[in-house]
Amino acid sequence: MSFSVTVPATTGNLGPGFDCLGAALSIYNCFEFTLADEFKINATGNGADKVAKNKSNLVYQSLEKLYDKIDRRRPIVQINIQTEVPLARGLGSSATAIIGGLMGGNLLAGAPLSTSEILQLAVEIEGHPDNVAPAMLGGCQLATTTKTNAWDYCAIAWHKKIAIALAIPDFELPTAKARQVLPKQVNLKDAIFNASHLALLTQALTQGKGELLEIALQDKLHQPYRQSLIPHMEEVQKAAAQAGAYGSVISGAGPTLLALGAPEQIEAIASAMVNTWQGLGVHAVKKVVAIAHQGTTHQEI
Amino acid sequence: MSFSVTVPATTGNLGPGFDCLGAALSIYNCFEFTLADEFKINATGNGADKVAKNKSNLVYQSLEKLYDKIDRRRPIVQINIQTEVPLARGLGSSATAIIGGLMGGNLLAGAPLSTSEILQLAVEIEGHPDNVAPAMLGGCQLATTTKTNAWDYCAIAWHKKIAIALAIPDFELPTAKARQVLPKQVNLKDAIFNASHLALLTQALTQGKGELLEIALQDKLHQPYRQSLIPHMEEVQKAAAQAGAYGSVISGAGPTLLALGAPEQIEAIASAMVNTWQGLGVHAVKKVVAIAHQGTTHQEI
Repeated sequence: MSFSVTVPATTGNLGPGFDCLGAALSIYNCFEFTLADEFKINATGNGADKVAKNKSNLVYQSLEKLYDKIDRRRPIVQINIQTEVPLARGLGSSATAIIGGLMGGNLLAGAPLSTSEILQLAVEIEGHPDNVAPAMLGGCQLATTTKTNAWDYCAIAWHKKIAIALAIPDFELPTAKARQVLPKQVNLKDAIFNASHLALLTQALTQGKGELLEIALQDKLHQPYRQSLIPHMEEVQKAAAQAGAYGSVISGAGPTLLALGAPEQIEAIASAMVNTWQGLGVHAVKKVVAIAHQGTTHQEI
Repeated sequence: MSFSVTVPATTGNLGPGFDCLGAALSIYNCFEFTLADEFKINATGNGADKVAKNKSNLVYQSLEKLYDKIDRRRPIVQINIQTEVPLARGLGSSATAIIGGLMGGNLLAGAPLSTSEILQLAVEIEGHPDNVAPAMLGGCQLATTTKTNAWDYCAIAWHKKIAIALAIPDFELPTAKARQVLPKQVNLKDAIFNASHLALLTQALTQGKGELLEIALQDKLHQPYRQSLIPHMEEVQKAAAQAGAYGSVISGAGPTLLALGAPEQIEAIASAMVNTWQGLGVHAVKKVVAIAHQGTTHQEI
């Protein structure tokens, strides 16, 4: 019995949407799960050498968590991983692993859990919903909490006039490190600032009003603290703006920088960002990506 | 030379939109300004006896500020005030006075300032934009700040399927007192909570999705601190919910409570709220109001 599960990359935060807004992007990790006589993990593709091949692997760990949850004995599996999403760059590679492992385990077990139950488990493992929700559901997702403290998700219909450029530098920034620099308490004024700007951002995204994004993408809750962890961030952001970007932000916990712009300008924006970083001695690659509307998909193989 | 200026009441905050979201409501204060030989203020209507008749009056003070701004000598004026908006109830009566005075002064001076210049002056006087912006511009307005710290306003198109009930108790709650109880610092988690819920609220309001409002109207930045200033708030909110309200919040700094519901249920919701308060010994009046799309209007008389 074999299943393949394909999970998109995600960008979390998007400026003012710290820990609650995320979007699925058209870069994919593919995970194949097969019941086997012997445990084995293979990995190919971008950063495959850095994928743990033992039981500490996050895909496998997540599969185990699913079996614990349904109170069944863990099976012996072989997992083949094809990675396209770069590791520790702020593009949700760990969310792909968590969703992949949970989905794979659920399929091998005969699909006892629903999508929303799997997503709930994924949030528990990841600690916040802004990557796992869009990775699972696709599109752009806003996460809120209900009166009983459950997570609820609202799809923010991303307008096709808003295109996405990524500049992915060749160094890693572990999320744990990027979280350490954040304060536990913030000024009430900064809280109000982010709330109003996030509301404006979701209006701009759904209405395709790029001209609002320069204001809307501002944030005071995480980027001011993280900027020092990303060399030359300001210069790259300036280059994006000069090339016509509406605005630019740290993707997730970084170090990837993401710019939003008009579709006809987005290639030039991506080039300007990467060229600026290169000129300052930071190797980086550019990627123009689309919103992955489908989210996680799977098939029997 | 005489002008009349009509300014709508406003409800600020709307739950998670503390100090940045507000809506104009169909209750109006009307101010008549006439150049005269002797200073005089007359007031009629709801709460007219509490209107200051000397130069400490906020309408007159605001008119003075306009003349200071344009660097002209203050004229001698007679101001007739017809009040419908109750004072110190969280319905933006001070915003009507500020906008009224500034607009009246501007008209008497030959309209040297633009709408946006008057609004900027109004925010400086009031200290926050969530009442003066909708009072001036009409509709529901989201206030954000630009990169140069100027205010910017985005109209949130309020869907006609979302109706508004007010329960206005017969005690005053000065805004200054309601602000004293707020902390200067808040948990990062609470800041994220309000940001995500405000974004959901603006989506729900524009799309007419009442079913999202129970979640979306939640707030952790001001209402938990202010609840103790409004006797029996929890019971009134429960009564609103039982009568079919999607959710309910403190209007502005209170003590008025505002519920959102379906148009066909809104009268019953308003009655349930007021009856509950009355049963607990708090005299209150109900009002079902519409969004005032027009904002401030004026004419020569």
